[in-house]
Amino acid sequence: MSKAAKHKASMEKQKTNVDASIAAADTEKSLVLLLTGNGKGKTSSAFGMVMRAMGYGHRVGIVQFIKGEQLSGEELFARENLPETDFYQMGTGFTWDTQDRQSDIEAAQRTWREAHRMLSDPSYDLVILDELTYMLSFDYLEESVVLEAIHQRPEQQSVVVTGRGGGAALQELADTVSEVKEIKHAFRAGIKARKGVDF
Amino acid sequence: MSKAAKHKASMEKQKTNVDASIAAADTEKSLVLLLTGNGKGKTSSAFGMVMRAMGYGHRVGIVQFIKGEQLSGEELFARENLPETDFYQMGTGFTWDTQDRQSDIEAAQRTWREAHRMLSDPSYDLVILDELTYMLSFDYLEESVVLEAIHQRPEQQSVVVTGRGGGAALQELADTVSEVKEIKHAFRAGIKARKGVDF
Repeated sequence: MSKAAKHKASMEKQKTNVDASIAAADTEKSLVLLLTGNGKGKTSSAFGMVMRAMGYGHRVGIVQFIKGEQLSGEELFARENLPETDFYQMGTGFTWDTQDRQSDIEAAQRTWREAHRMLSDPSYDLVILDELTYMLSFDYLEESVVLEAIHQRPEQQSVVVTGRGGGAALQELADTVSEVKEIKHAFRAGIKARKGVDF
Repeated sequence: MSKAAKHKASMEKQKTNVDASIAAADTEKSLVLLLTGNGKGKTSSAFGMVMRAMGYGHRVGIVQFIKGEQLSGEELFARENLPETDFYQMGTGFTWDTQDRQSDIEAAQRTWREAHRMLSDPSYDLVILDELTYMLSFDYLEESVVLEAIHQRPEQQSVVVTGRGGGAALQELADTVSEVKEIKHAFRAGIKARKGVDF
């Protein structure tokens, strides 16, 4: 058999398999996605879904826990393209910057109120909860309250949660879980975080 | 020691470590990123970096190998926000759809010419080569030609390559490699791909 004929036969077989699995996946429902792991790409993946949703004219709500002390490309983009009510940042920086547990908890609670507002509002098609997992692992927010709000969200609304860890209950609630593993990171080779790529 | 004091001590220590590694990473250079693995989030992560770069007014070039037969949110977004010359799609669908090795090779070569044009043009700050890895694993493009073009790109230009696999030489060339691992996928639970999230 020629290379071309082999290719065709193998692709025909693959098409049969792919078609069968597409046909089997016939439930229409909104999704909960968890992007976890120690590698680069979790927040940017969430923002790629923002772009996707905006392409269809969907309404997107974004809440960034932790981030927001340093200016980022996604913040600049959001300021230009999203109303203020759709993009909320905790804005305190990392826990090792504040070093103050009580003020961090207050900031987390305040930020959670915005998240909860979006999770209760059916006009949002997609809600991004960037770096939410740290709020759970530091016990700044109560896990049961957070999971219940995600579970009780409007029927057509999808939710993306990012951050390392996240816990078994959140993984259980999520429809899709991707672990972004660091194989290699420029930072470890002494290369500075790059504007427009890393932030 | 109170919980607050323990937290402060632990965060002070963490800040020292974080500050030291930030100080150690002082090389300014453009990046090659590889987003690989079998999980959901590779293409969306690349598009999140597009958003980041656009936030800073950087020029972005996007080439989608394989994709483009089905309409996607990122395509709609790009049509609205990026000039045609900055967004190029191979547009043939997957190899199991075409089943024709020769026409796939021709489409890959044609698409590569666009990628190569961007990789030679210093006006692009960021070039996305979405699903390029499959072109290498199917031998549609010559690995040495592709790697050389990435290596010889303009000094300030960063490149993001997505797709499963990619090979050892590409991993070696990349500054940052993230493997997106599927822990769980909605599709396997019979849930349809979701507009604005999956495409």
